[in-house]
Amino acid sequence: MNDAAVSDLSAHVDQLCARAKPAGIAIAGASDAQRVAGLEAAALAIEAASDSIIAANAQDLAAADSAGLSAAMLDRLRLDATRLAGVVGDLRAVAAQTDPVGRVLDERGIAQGLQLQKISVPLGVVCIIFESRPNVTVDAAALCVRSGNACILRGGKEAVHSNRAFAAAFRHGLETAGLNPDAVQLVQEQDRALVPLLLARSDAIDIVVPRGGEGLIKAVCEVSKIPVVKHDKGVCSLYIHAKANLAMAVELVLNAKCQRPGVCNAIENLLVDAAIAPTALPLLSTALTQAGVTVRACERALPLLPGAEAATAADWDEEYLNLTLAVKVVDDLDDALAFTAAHSSQHSDGIITDDTEAAERYLRTVDSSAVYHNASTRFTDGAQFGLGAEVGISTNRLHARGPMGISELCTYKYVVRGTGQARA
Amino acid sequence: MNDAAVSDLSAHVDQLCARAKPAGIAIAGASDAQRVAGLEAAALAIEAASDSIIAANAQDLAAADSAGLSAAMLDRLRLDATRLAGVVGDLRAVAAQTDPVGRVLDERGIAQGLQLQKISVPLGVVCIIFESRPNVTVDAAALCVRSGNACILRGGKEAVHSNRAFAAAFRHGLETAGLNPDAVQLVQEQDRALVPLLLARSDAIDIVVPRGGEGLIKAVCEVSKIPVVKHDKGVCSLYIHAKANLAMAVELVLNAKCQRPGVCNAIENLLVDAAIAPTALPLLSTALTQAGVTVRACERALPLLPGAEAATAADWDEEYLNLTLAVKVVDDLDDALAFTAAHSSQHSDGIITDDTEAAERYLRTVDSSAVYHNASTRFTDGAQFGLGAEVGISTNRLHARGPMGISELCTYKYVVRGTGQARA
Repeated sequence: MNDAAVSDLSAHVDQLCARAKPAGIAIAGASDAQRVAGLEAAALAIEAASDSIIAANAQDLAAADSAGLSAAMLDRLRLDATRLAGVVGDLRAVAAQTDPVGRVLDERGIAQGLQLQKISVPLGVVCIIFESRPNVTVDAAALCVRSGNACILRGGKEAVHSNRAFAAAFRHGLETAGLNPDAVQLVQEQDRALVPLLLARSDAIDIVVPRGGEGLIKAVCEVSKIPVVKHDKGVCSLYIHAKANLAMAVELVLNAKCQRPGVCNAIENLLVDAAIAPTALPLLSTALTQAGVTVRACERALPLLPGAEAATAADWDEEYLNLTLAVKVVDDLDDALAFTAAHSSQHSDGIITDDTEAAERYLRTVDSSAVYHNASTRFTDGAQFGLGAEVGISTNRLHARGPMGISELCTYKYVVRGTGQARA
Repeated sequence: MNDAAVSDLSAHVDQLCARAKPAGIAIAGASDAQRVAGLEAAALAIEAASDSIIAANAQDLAAADSAGLSAAMLDRLRLDATRLAGVVGDLRAVAAQTDPVGRVLDERGIAQGLQLQKISVPLGVVCIIFESRPNVTVDAAALCVRSGNACILRGGKEAVHSNRAFAAAFRHGLETAGLNPDAVQLVQEQDRALVPLLLARSDAIDIVVPRGGEGLIKAVCEVSKIPVVKHDKGVCSLYIHAKANLAMAVELVLNAKCQRPGVCNAIENLLVDAAIAPTALPLLSTALTQAGVTVRACERALPLLPGAEAATAADWDEEYLNLTLAVKVVDDLDDALAFTAAHSSQHSDGIITDDTEAAERYLRTVDSSAVYHNASTRFTDGAQFGLGAEVGISTNRLHARGPMGISELCTYKYVVRGTGQARA
């Protein structure tokens, strides 16, 4: 890339940042009713622009087809009237959520009779970097506006026309509702060299949320000077305890592995207590084989799982994202806890048991964003947790952990009311 | 530095990290009573080692004296029986705080009859990098152990002997209470080249808290691959509104500027509403002159402040940390809000007024970690806010904002209890 091109990218980043900050202050100052009206206007604008959005999407599909993208990728990219209605429905559901801004999180009298309140406030300017699915443009914009934040959105090049059409309609909606459209800005330049320039702007952007594959997340974390809340991989597990209900165990394993194997809250590892392995493994073997699951088993499990392959050490840390399951026999609860501490990516892990004491010890000890007793790990999700739509599932330990909804797009400030107190 | 020295530093960092992780898991699993007992044992161990701690401190003082450190620096470094009693008293006060771990932050029924709890859990391994005052070794260790975290402490070279003596006693105390002493590790190598090696270890350390001057904080933020909660500068202000009680205003300005000018919550900027400037400024001038304050004034304020110097544009963003105050006349509340948005470092800002509507608008609009009405900004402090001792005052927007106590050294996890729920 020549110098002129770099300077164009810099100029684009400068412009995005210069507009985002005042837009953030304006949207943070907008009332709940104004933000809700802005989202409703955006929904109407998207409905009104549906023909041009679908035409823009057709351009992306044609380009993707020529580029030889897989059928699965093309399907993720595709918009039609039904999907568009879904996007608008999701947008209205975000609008319908309770305002996360201005909530009194704590309130008490402090030193010298001062009154302290801890109040939720928007984070400021949120940058979301995502891949392929164009509906993320609308989701992310809606979550940010609902929580009083301005956003800078950078979508994948496959969906560039769809994203532009969505963003234009969204911004038009905000404008008709009297809000600053720069609360939602889409990066127009697709050049990858722009991303490091954007991620250097900690003066203008408060948080970066990368959504996509491992490569994207790693690249963002490596260069960002802005705090990153990442949505990293899920190496999740279920542990069938010695006192498990085996019928329940088989059902939960099938659900956690097979209901949607390509997502982060599906399990990759299954731990089976040695005390019940001789009974449990043959039952599981039949069920998993019927479900088309490829099993990689430890030495002790292998003889009890006809058709399974021998697992290697690498299997215990791998996120398959497909119908493969690594199965390991563990000695007892302690062994299961040690395995989980060593191999879980601290996303979602669960125990299946009728022994309350064992369950409580597991729930207390396992340090994952969500820990389960007698339930599928597939519930780790903003909607399932009752948080509404989510901007992602954080694998960070700081700020937000697990499903990240509009409340997690807020920070707080302390408001102190006095009657003339000077510090003694 | 030669290759052998670098490899020694690497080996030291590897050892610190290898010990911190299991120590973190162990201290997170310790009960409230065990952690309190560990801190009480540490207090007793420090009392028992007081002679050797004071002797170690004498070594540091002698070295600092030879190195020509200022009298103020020597005073910050010095320990005596009274100060040592203060350090132990602070440690016992941390032990007496309510357990921040295992608190139920939220609890409700979610999808398909599952029961969800959001529970506070320790962050894991906390790295604190600090300068000069040796009492920080004990404070930081106590806050981390109280909140179930392991810590890696890296103090300044001026206090190396004092820090080692404190850390040795603290670890001995933990050990006598049956806790893993590696919950508190002091970096033994003073070589600065170690710091980047430590800050690269996001695999082993969950959070870095730099405490010290602007140079230290900048250096840490630039190289760290671990999330940083920084304690950055405070460019704080008070705004005397048109309807302020002037006697109160003079008292609060003096307190916020002069009570301890070298700290981050002291004010650097004073805004005076044009409507009352002709009355307020002469009153302030007398009071500030008597208090030995150097005033840098805007063009409109200058004629009303005998002895003041003319302010330059740079004054509005400067953290003086001494008895200098920049004074600006503003047109009205809007002008004050615009100035504050442009120049505040978002630490602490306040309004003085008897007009409730103006006060509420100011409190709502100013986006600082603490905003005040009719009180001195000097109250932004963990102890004053009733949070107990603090690990610092965060100027981050994410995770923790403002005074950071033991609750802010925690994150959370979701615990989900079911009766066999598979996701539909």
